[in-house]
Formats: sequence, C-alpha cells, structure tokens
Amino acid sequence: MTRVLKLTLQYDGTDYVGWQRQAIGTSIQGLIEDALQPIEGAPVTVHGAGRTDAGVHALGQVCSFKLAATIDPATLARALNAVLPPDVRVASAVEAADDFHARFDATGKVYDYRIVNGPFISPFARRYAWHVIPPLDIGAMQEAAQALIGEHDFTTFRGAGSEAHTSVRTITRVASSGSGGAEDPLTMRFEGNGFLRHMVRSIAGTLVEIGLGRWPARVMKEILESRDRTRAGKTAPAQGLFLVEVRY
Amino acid sequence: MTRVLKLTLQYDGTDYVGWQRQAIGTSIQGLIEDALQPIEGAPVTVHGAGRTDAGVHALGQVCSFKLAATIDPATLARALNAVLPPDVRVASAVEAADDFHARFDATGKVYDYRIVNGPFISPFARRYAWHVIPPLDIGAMQEAAQALIGEHDFTTFRGAGSEAHTSVRTITRVASSGSGGAEDPLTMRFEGNGFLRHMVRSIAGTLVEIGLGRWPARVMKEILESRDRTRAGKTAPAQGLFLVEVRY
Repeated sequence: MTRVLKLTLQYDGTDYVGWQRQAIGTSIQGLIEDALQPIEGAPVTVHGAGRTDAGVHALGQVCSFKLAATIDPATLARALNAVLPPDVRVASAVEAADDFHARFDATGKVYDYRIVNGPFISPFARRYAWHVIPPLDIGAMQEAAQALIGEHDFTTFRGAGSEAHTSVRTITRVASSGSGGAEDPLTMRFEGNGFLRHMVRSIAGTLVEIGLGRWPARVMKEILESRDRTRAGKTAPAQGLFLVEVRY
Repeated sequence: MTRVLKLTLQYDGTDYVGWQRQAIGTSIQGLIEDALQPIEGAPVTVHGAGRTDAGVHALGQVCSFKLAATIDPATLARALNAVLPPDVRVASAVEAADDFHARFDATGKVYDYRIVNGPFISPFARRYAWHVIPPLDIGAMQEAAQALIGEHDFTTFRGAGSEAHTSVRTITRVASSGSGGAEDPLTMRFEGNGFLRHMVRSIAGTLVEIGLGRWPARVMKEILESRDRTRAGKTAPAQGLFLVEVRY
C-alpha cells in the first residue's frame, strides 16, 4: 500500500544548484530522489515546500512523496543519511496523511537572512552570511522592516523567473537579533504565509541600503507601494539566506 | 626600526596540517609567514601561542613576530586578509612591547570542545563538532570534569610527541553549556595556565566514556592520579576542538 512520507531536511546549499532539479548541476531534490529510488525500486517524485535557490541553506525544508516500499520512517531517515552527502541531512521522517503535499499544504514559512557587519568575516560565518563592511544602522533597518508587515502586493521584491500567480503575500512578523559582529551575525527573521522568488533577498538588499544610510527608513513603504522592481535594493547574496521552518 | 606585532587569528583548521610548519601540507604558521614576506621584503618568523594540531580550529589564536617594514597595524591586518585564504583571518593586529613573545608570555589559555549528541549532525556543525550518536549523561560528565580543577600532573592525558618539560598544569575552570542537540552543541570549556599536546582531546574522550555510562564519574580522579596514559579514553577528534582565547 502506498503511503505519503514527510521529511524535514537541513542542508548547506553552498555546493548545490538549489532545491529543484536542473539540467546541469546537483540539486537537493535530485539527491533525495536518487537516494529514494533504490529503496523504492522505482523512481520517486519528491515535492519540496520551498524552491530554495542555488546557495540558499535550509534548517527546516520539508518535502513529501509517495512510497510503496515497506520501511519504517526512522529506518528510512537513517538509510537516506547513510547515502546522502554530509551537507544534506534528514532531520526527521514521519508518515503523513494520504493527501499531504509539502508545497500545497504549507500555511507559513520562516526565513532568516544573516549579515556579518565589520572589517572581516569569521572563517566560521563566511559561507553562512553576507559580509557588509561599512557600519550598518540596525535601528533604521528594524524601523524600515516594520512597513512590510501585513498583506501587501510584493511586486517590488519579486525576482525574475517567479512563477507565482499573484504577488500578494502576508508577512506576519519581522524580527532581528544579533549585533552583526563576527561572532554574532545580524539575523533578520521573516515570517509569512509565503514568499515570492528572491523576495527575502531583495528585501534584505533594500534594508542594507537603508542601514548604510543611502536611503531613509521611511522610503521602505514607498518602495513597497511603488510595485516597481527597479526601486528595490540589490538582491542580497544567497549565502545569507536560510529556510528555517515550514508551517502546516 | 624593528617593532614587535601581535596578531589575533581565527581559522577553520579543517584543511590544514595545524599551526606549525610541516614538511608536507599547508600550515597556518606557513600561511602567515608567506603572507608577511613580501610586506617585509625578507623572511619573517612567526611565533604562535599554541601549536594547534591538524584539524583544530581557532577563534583566538595569537602570534607575534618582528617587523622592520613601515606599516600601521590596521593596514597590515587588511593586507594580510587580502592574501590569506578565507578560512584564515586576522581578527586584529596591534603593536606589542619590544620583548613580547606570543608563546612564552602566555599566562592562560581557553579551549572549547564541542559535541553533537544524537542520531544526526547538522550540515552546519559537521566540521566543528564531534558527532556522538548514543545518548550522553551530561550531568555525569560535568561531575567528572570537576576532578580536573587545580594543579595536577596531567601525564595521563599527555599525547605522544609532547615536547613539554613538565606535565604539571593548572586547570582553573571547566564549564559546559549546550544540550548537545543538532542546533545546540554541548560545549565543554577548559581554562588553565597551559595545556599539554592532545590534553583537551584526551580529556574530552575520557569524559565521553563517562557520558556513555561505560565508566562511573568518580573514576576521573583515579584516572588522573594514575599518570597512566593507557587509562585515558580515546583522543577525541580534532574537529571538535577550538582554541578560544590566549591570555597574557
């Protein structure tokens, strides 16, 4: 009998082309599917909750798939971890409802964007944060970020290649922690019902322009309402972005 | 006029043969010396406070050297960081007293040993902690570690190849933090006036035997007093060890 399984994954995205299978390069989806095939004895299609881009990390990506093979979820997790590369780990595996779908059933997501601010970046943070050298005004960034809370049309922060039908999303919470120092990265956490492609990185890039004093904090509202992609800051680098949690 | 400069270094030791120059492989000392040579226009000999072994990391290694070239310390730090690989960073550079020597003047050192305890290790911790799968009794490890505090002959925990004249060292503090979970490694911090080669890793290996319930906590005192190296646990892997701070 076919069951639906739900995995929670962690990965260091540095060396991958992102979640989704691509013509060239190694994807997380491809790794999971390739690891499942010998267990199932047939190809398995895996659905991820979020299509993380190349270089983006995950602390709590979720995926689901149908499996006919008889194997208990904890054994499956161990079997997958035995063949997956060490920078991709199955943190947990559970049996889900027959109609569960990791992408369509997600009701919310949490992303972190990390920045190290100062003259040098620690060897331990360098693959997991954006290094911004000039001093950032974190207070101004926090103030500006509040304008994002609520239901908005996020066209301004929508990246090229986004396949979403609508640009309307709800951000429920934006919080920041950390000083930005080498041992204590500035972490901006975004919680919402969903995010467009490149949206968090585009917002992070805009917040850094404000933190650098190039734009005042109050322009965030104008930029958001303009629905003009040319008004957003540069898309912040992928290495600072973490998919922290998917909510159902 | 020749000055003495003091650098504080951070490095990810994963890809290096350790602090000290070796016949084969890349050492941290070699990288710093090679980066200084074009600035000085002559070879520079660099003295490190601690000879970290292959794979051991540093959050606060200190080194010193004589320099005749005219360059201010902040510029020197930037110049070195521009040529060093990104997993070796100069966190700070200052001018020191004419007779300062990073190794001989050190009065204390702080080391952390990190362990992830559970079925899997996060991609983000895998190079920076020892992965121990069976559950550890952290309370028993903490209790056992207290026997190490004070001035003792640490012959039991002295590794082969140690060049020290005496095995007597003083540990002033042992503290642990963290649950051992994938996102919250168990960190055992050791503070003392100095440490023998492999001493922290040998102690960590012994504490893990106790944590696994193979040996009772009370045997730590006997093992220490036995001065018998065969009674120590296995030397814990280098990847969990961090030189956190050198005190002067």
